[in-house]
Amino acid sequence: MKKKFLAASLALAFGAGSGYVMNSFAQAKPEQLVKQRQSAMTLIGKYWGPTNAMATGKAPYDAAAAQRNAGFLQALAQMPWDGFAENTKDSPEKNRALPAIWAEPAKFKEAADRLQNTTAKLAASAKDEAAFKAAAGEVGKACGGCHESFRAK
Amino acid sequence: MKKKFLAASLALAFGAGSGYVMNSFAQAKPEQLVKQRQSAMTLIGKYWGPTNAMATGKAPYDAAAAQRNAGFLQALAQMPWDGFAENTKDSPEKNRALPAIWAEPAKFKEAADRLQNTTAKLAASAKDEAAFKAAAGEVGKACGGCHESFRAK
Repeated sequence: MKKKFLAASLALAFGAGSGYVMNSFAQAKPEQLVKQRQSAMTLIGKYWGPTNAMATGKAPYDAAAAQRNAGFLQALAQMPWDGFAENTKDSPEKNRALPAIWAEPAKFKEAADRLQNTTAKLAASAKDEAAFKAAAGEVGKACGGCHESFRAK
Repeated sequence: MKKKFLAASLALAFGAGSGYVMNSFAQAKPEQLVKQRQSAMTLIGKYWGPTNAMATGKAPYDAAAAQRNAGFLQALAQMPWDGFAENTKDSPEKNRALPAIWAEPAKFKEAADRLQNTTAKLAASAKDEAAFKAAAGEVGKACGGCHESFRAK
């Protein structure tokens, strides 16, 4: 393990002082960053599925499951963003990241923040069925809004 | 989204009443389960790297980073296990899961529990440098012990 921390290079993707805590490796290769961010999205999908099913009445609301899923989503929602470092822009790995991510970093950061904020609210409200359902709707909009602008169809 | 919950089929991998909360989909395909569990391992690796670097003195201890990473590891350590459902045993996807996972389910559950317990202790101790370093050592042993028995070289 001869890896070192570096916040600076990745933080540049969002601008210094953006509030992002970067703790990935300086030597993280673009393909590794792509794999890590895709892993975060895969797991968000894993826990969003049953969350959305409960929120939309396709599955019965279960307070314990809602809290567990929402807690996982809150944690996972913090994980993809440093994987969108500028050095992944031309990554040959199959991925659907659009150039707008790097062309409009402020708008992308806003979309990333929105997912983090809405999942935090979901986790805070998961104990209450009505609040959980309303919060889940906002999470869904955060997912969709970001994919609309920053992910290829 | 016409997916439904089902705990039963996945819980069988560990035996009923094992305490595992299963909330994946009944219809989750083996390849999806493999992808999800590998995603959890990828992200555990992402946050274990800097954690281990701090714990072993290869990077300076930073209380905020230690707590953040440990919190993520604690959440992620709960995510892989329902992905090792019996229907993934003969999955053609490239993966290193050994047959021992299904041949020795009690031992595998013990290894899975060990990661969850040690990462919970890590998260609880991350504020204190000495306690964090000791707890990280136990997490490392949990990783290594499980890989030794249940992951192909």
